[in-house]
Amino acid sequence: MTAVGIDAIEIWTGKLSLDLPETFAPAKGEDPEKYTKGLGLKTSSFPDTYEDIVTMGANAAKRLMDRKGLVPEDIGRIDVATESAFDNSKPVSTYIAGCLEQVYDDDFHHANKGERKFACVAGTQSIDDAYNWIRAGRHRGRSALVVATDTALYARGDPGEATQGGGAVAMLISEEPSLVELSPEQGYGSADETDFLKPNQQFPSVDGKRSMQVYLARMREALTDFESVAWDTHPDDFAYIPFHTPFPGMVRKAGLLGYRHMIRDTEIEEDLASEIGRQPREEAFDDRESYEEAIRGYMDDLSGTDTYREWYGAAIEPTLALSRRVGNWYTGSVHVARASALQHALENDVDLEGSKLLVGSYGSGAQAEMHAETVRPGWAEEVAALTVDEQLDRRYDLSYEEYERVHDSHNHDLNDDIEAFTQPDGEFVHTGWGRMSERQYDYVE
Amino acid sequence: MTAVGIDAIEIWTGKLSLDLPETFAPAKGEDPEKYTKGLGLKTSSFPDTYEDIVTMGANAAKRLMDRKGLVPEDIGRIDVATESAFDNSKPVSTYIAGCLEQVYDDDFHHANKGERKFACVAGTQSIDDAYNWIRAGRHRGRSALVVATDTALYARGDPGEATQGGGAVAMLISEEPSLVELSPEQGYGSADETDFLKPNQQFPSVDGKRSMQVYLARMREALTDFESVAWDTHPDDFAYIPFHTPFPGMVRKAGLLGYRHMIRDTEIEEDLASEIGRQPREEAFDDRESYEEAIRGYMDDLSGTDTYREWYGAAIEPTLALSRRVGNWYTGSVHVARASALQHALENDVDLEGSKLLVGSYGSGAQAEMHAETVRPGWAEEVAALTVDEQLDRRYDLSYEEYERVHDSHNHDLNDDIEAFTQPDGEFVHTGWGRMSERQYDYVE
Repeated sequence: MTAVGIDAIEIWTGKLSLDLPETFAPAKGEDPEKYTKGLGLKTSSFPDTYEDIVTMGANAAKRLMDRKGLVPEDIGRIDVATESAFDNSKPVSTYIAGCLEQVYDDDFHHANKGERKFACVAGTQSIDDAYNWIRAGRHRGRSALVVATDTALYARGDPGEATQGGGAVAMLISEEPSLVELSPEQGYGSADETDFLKPNQQFPSVDGKRSMQVYLARMREALTDFESVAWDTHPDDFAYIPFHTPFPGMVRKAGLLGYRHMIRDTEIEEDLASEIGRQPREEAFDDRESYEEAIRGYMDDLSGTDTYREWYGAAIEPTLALSRRVGNWYTGSVHVARASALQHALENDVDLEGSKLLVGSYGSGAQAEMHAETVRPGWAEEVAALTVDEQLDRRYDLSYEEYERVHDSHNHDLNDDIEAFTQPDGEFVHTGWGRMSERQYDYVE
Repeated sequence: MTAVGIDAIEIWTGKLSLDLPETFAPAKGEDPEKYTKGLGLKTSSFPDTYEDIVTMGANAAKRLMDRKGLVPEDIGRIDVATESAFDNSKPVSTYIAGCLEQVYDDDFHHANKGERKFACVAGTQSIDDAYNWIRAGRHRGRSALVVATDTALYARGDPGEATQGGGAVAMLISEEPSLVELSPEQGYGSADETDFLKPNQQFPSVDGKRSMQVYLARMREALTDFESVAWDTHPDDFAYIPFHTPFPGMVRKAGLLGYRHMIRDTEIEEDLASEIGRQPREEAFDDRESYEEAIRGYMDDLSGTDTYREWYGAAIEPTLALSRRVGNWYTGSVHVARASALQHALENDVDLEGSKLLVGSYGSGAQAEMHAETVRPGWAEEVAALTVDEQLDRRYDLSYEEYERVHDSHNHDLNDDIEAFTQPDGEFVHTGWGRMSERQYDYVE
């Protein structure tokens, strides 16, 4: 079977940066470690005044197309995943195609454009759609452009304010991909949940505690479902496990949960038994509550073992490096985590070809998806081409007062018109609104 | 190759009805024929106060599942297409699954739920996703539930007000389907257009004239693209051609355009030549403008020929019967048109098995999609099971003053709390809002 997967990836960060320990914490009168240790975040990316989900997505897509030498007729579909849409009918993909058509000779008139919404999991769903379209043989030899783009803003003063972010990830889905092959097997954990939603509003209503419980419950269901169609997973199966990363602290919990699940009935559980005992088995308990308490105790003990710490340091920690610098990008987040892991491998001369990743995506509301990816021979060249670190270093470092102003400029109810902090250079910019309130864009040389 | 397509369909109409010639026209001081002749509409469906996109979608889905004897574990994905969403993050499919889980023993925790947005074309896009998922072999023997649900409301006084509507179409996509097999071939015509949009607003901003031009231009591109991968189409190839139907008058134009395209260089063009001449060829004209004027003249003549009228009466007119009674349902509209055609065949004892349909979907913004469908042996039984005519007959006939009140009750900025006009009976109803402004639903026996 021909391999189908991610051929190339490009990341575009919002061009502004908010320093959480140095700028945000002092203004809020908080201990900086609340952010660096608790949440695991250092800085957040913010879009400048002329940036939005369209410009960031189009800029990531253009860079990807240029680097891969693609023209519009190579692209058979453009799928955008976002939960920051500004229109209830017209999809963001049409705006992005409109931007790209300003700079390419050809057009995308025979490409299927779409938009998916399901909180942060829609980026992965869009990859799946593209994968299935190719496997169904409907692609006419063309590739799919998937763009996950979000401005993850919370109302000012909301507890989620520290986990904000903004940026886009563009991915090319093709046959014989250079980066990773996707497994046909997928696992789903999905339920109707009220943990995070945006009922007719730009900024989310969040039940933070519930959202963390739901993330873990759905992720566990997805892993079990994946195993039912793939194989019984073992920690050694995967070089890295990129999870959706609303903030790195959440992934610490997910990593521990996944590890406990995977080592059950393995030699790892046996080896650890002398140190922390074997895992509690539900059948040994009178009720669910006492079983769950025992599980929590075991997980606490497990998290302190060298065995676990070593695994976590190798398979999970490297997925978080970019997230610590950019915050939550919603639909792009898990794809930033994958990129972070691959960068770590390249920097450490890890021979990754043929290795597997387990990718855990999640969207509130709520649904988790898990699938495996196999690293392809061309991975190192693709990852070496990423410019995300240079982009992050170049961001304008906001003062708290500037942060307040830029937040207001992106608030749909305010749309405050303020001066940009950076100069656009070879990129698409948002220039204003037309007579039907449609957003307008130009390419700035 | 195993056939993949639509196994079953269920239609749920909003339970209220607005009579355009009898009620709307007098209140507006308009000639009733503006609606009946110009737009081609008689009545519009409206949701009662306890109905919304979730209840209508869940009610259509439940009826489909019950009729087909399905349980949740038979369903591998639930895809909702809508441009009437009330949340920017949490998809409507989770609410619909939550409704269904109130009445079935099992749950949909391992089903992939999604939401697509692209004006009125997203319902067809969701069918494609389901088709591709099955063709990719990822469905584990399960089917997909696709729900196209919309409340197509305009601001009061908007020129589009007469083309409103509200209802849902649920479709089951499966292997070896009972109703129609989908062609692997698809044609797309897609461009970044500002014809109809909803920038951070519930009701659309519309450039009506532009929207009609764009509909025709994209539909023509899609047909040409379809032919490039399928075959040169001929009017005799298709028993019916269901188009997206914002109002039947639009389809009159599309039908004529499609017919002219299909008869070019055929015996039909030759036979008509003595009556109206041959079609203008672009190479015979000095400029595009005079060529287009000549084409318009030919089309005018063509529309008056018996040959065209007979074809239109057989292949297009039957697709409009339901639309005349329900108005525009946005994402559901083209699927209502297909159902209307199939009902016509059943009522007229047409032997449709093995016949082909050409289906033309469209979404503003803008994109058209064309594909062929082959009618399956089980079609008559499926169509006989439709209850849409009884539902339409049972609707409560609104006075104009009642229409104004029910419109306000569905306006997100007003949410006026008024008495329902009908009694719920064996269906899901919207009961209110929870503490995070989430919509809440109950099943009423």
